[in-house]
Amino acid sequence: MSLPPDAVACPVPRTESERVLLAHGEGGRLMRRLIRDLLLPRLDNAALRPLADGAVLPSLAGQLVLSTDSYVVSPLFFPGGDIGKLAVHGTVNDLAVCGARPLYFTLGLILEEGLTLDTLRQVLESVGEAARACGVHVVTGDTKVVPRGAADGLFLNTTGVGELRPGCVLAAEQVLPGDCVLVSGTLGDHGIAVLAAREHLDLGPRVMSDTAPLQELVALLLDDGVRVRFLRDATRGGVAAVLHEMAESAAVSVLVEEAALPVSEAVRGACEILGLDPLHVANEGKLVAVVAAEDAGRALALMRGHRLGAAAAIIGEVRSRDLTPVQVRGLLGALRMLDEPAGAPLPRIC
Amino acid sequence: MSLPPDAVACPVPRTESERVLLAHGEGGRLMRRLIRDLLLPRLDNAALRPLADGAVLPSLAGQLVLSTDSYVVSPLFFPGGDIGKLAVHGTVNDLAVCGARPLYFTLGLILEEGLTLDTLRQVLESVGEAARACGVHVVTGDTKVVPRGAADGLFLNTTGVGELRPGCVLAAEQVLPGDCVLVSGTLGDHGIAVLAAREHLDLGPRVMSDTAPLQELVALLLDDGVRVRFLRDATRGGVAAVLHEMAESAAVSVLVEEAALPVSEAVRGACEILGLDPLHVANEGKLVAVVAAEDAGRALALMRGHRLGAAAAIIGEVRSRDLTPVQVRGLLGALRMLDEPAGAPLPRIC
Repeated sequence: MSLPPDAVACPVPRTESERVLLAHGEGGRLMRRLIRDLLLPRLDNAALRPLADGAVLPSLAGQLVLSTDSYVVSPLFFPGGDIGKLAVHGTVNDLAVCGARPLYFTLGLILEEGLTLDTLRQVLESVGEAARACGVHVVTGDTKVVPRGAADGLFLNTTGVGELRPGCVLAAEQVLPGDCVLVSGTLGDHGIAVLAAREHLDLGPRVMSDTAPLQELVALLLDDGVRVRFLRDATRGGVAAVLHEMAESAAVSVLVEEAALPVSEAVRGACEILGLDPLHVANEGKLVAVVAAEDAGRALALMRGHRLGAAAAIIGEVRSRDLTPVQVRGLLGALRMLDEPAGAPLPRIC
Repeated sequence: MSLPPDAVACPVPRTESERVLLAHGEGGRLMRRLIRDLLLPRLDNAALRPLADGAVLPSLAGQLVLSTDSYVVSPLFFPGGDIGKLAVHGTVNDLAVCGARPLYFTLGLILEEGLTLDTLRQVLESVGEAARACGVHVVTGDTKVVPRGAADGLFLNTTGVGELRPGCVLAAEQVLPGDCVLVSGTLGDHGIAVLAAREHLDLGPRVMSDTAPLQELVALLLDDGVRVRFLRDATRGGVAAVLHEMAESAAVSVLVEEAALPVSEAVRGACEILGLDPLHVANEGKLVAVVAAEDAGRALALMRGHRLGAAAAIIGEVRSRDLTPVQVRGLLGALRMLDEPAGAPLPRIC
């Protein structure tokens, strides 16, 4: 396997001259300058501007939803995205699948001494763009710097606050035998894209990360009155991890139809080379939705009408609990057990 | 300088047999087991229990306050505290000085492959204890594992949601010439404690970190109707950083009386050996309060009546803006300019 010339068409730091110093993380003048010069212009909003220890925000009428994620993806830039975009989309999606409208975000930066300021600038640019596109505000943050070797470049944490849609109850416990399982598009793109970029693998046609915000897809289903039982964005551990968790919490089993799984040719090929099952590979912009059987067709049509759901599919159904939490019916009709991932085949995918 | 036998009276991992694996961070069975076995028993509460992508919480009547901090302190355990306690107290304090009652917390873990599970267990124990003591609930979290060498042991992120006290407005812009500046106790304890533990320095008498939650001290002042203009907990960069930031935001100057500064003998001695100014050294449980001059005596008495404020002092006053943002009147009456810390003398202090 060799390095294809266009394997990582990602921004490369333009200048090496300015780097993060330990002093940038220590609460003094350099840190203030970093925040004013690099952060504020890219994330500016009224709540952030005072740069106090916390952000004071309006009260919310509805119930609060709170979600947090740290991002340690390697490399920081990969085909189709970067750690900044991922951090915004990931937390937007976690809120959306709880039935919340994402509103306010915090941003925690852990920087390794020696990181170029240019890299940081590009990541912040990306955070800002993604936040604007998703209609969320980064209202407060924190910056720490650790000495060379004590972290790998840059880690992010995003915590999001959302407001629950009135009356919205989504939970694995709502899932019933007979319900249908949908996914909003092709599986495994993010995991393969990051792996190929990190290991410089030529796995055939180039795969782009699917990193994307899912709150519009969720809103389409809920606004239309689809009886949605449970939503999850399938990230680490892939769709398999989501189905296993749900099967356990709801005390049901799930039957997946292999023929129905949307997987791109490129990902299918890469998975064959690597010996991976696309159901185990990470996504960063794919909704798993469990809906009442009678509403499944409508849910599918709604998803397919959105640019992020063009390849949506009904991939299986919920059954009464039996010995096997998740089974897959293969292309030739034989049933096999789908393993719960123990770990994951691909570390540092998000 | 040699290692005093009792320099770090902190828990030492009892067994080396169980360690964090990359697979613990990958969304599968091992991660679920880690969360169920290690996290839940120590942090358990109704909102956390569903272990969904986010926590659904009651609605709040008042305005929201949101604050985030990452913790990268080295070593993880130090005299007087550990990273877990620090992470809870730090975010409690950031919310408290904004005038909020701390309520809900998120916990983000970044673990280095090979960390002993026993260390993790002790840190989580400490997070749980501190949260219970502060009356806050850890309602959702996230765990990532990075390969050996890509992080240093364990980093934490805590993000906190609080509810603003009705009508409470605290901001540097409220500060007026004539106001008094108070601190709630001795300065520099945390910075010296961590430095001595990390570098195995024998700096004379042992210094303990002052890590502590400040919300009760804040409540005492606000409940009693003290005209509080501005509050801040003095962490990285010490009291000097707080006063400089405030002077800039409020367009005022500050005069500090050196004779009034509460500094323990041990910290004073250590600072002399190391050539540090206690005003620049980090604290993790010290309130800086700027109050109307007529209320300063009452504020001082209120602080001194609380166990965390026994050594509180009025350390200076706010003046009209002049050329020097922060001046110190030395013990012999001479004025000197107090530098704003550019970086900080001590990295990875929190």
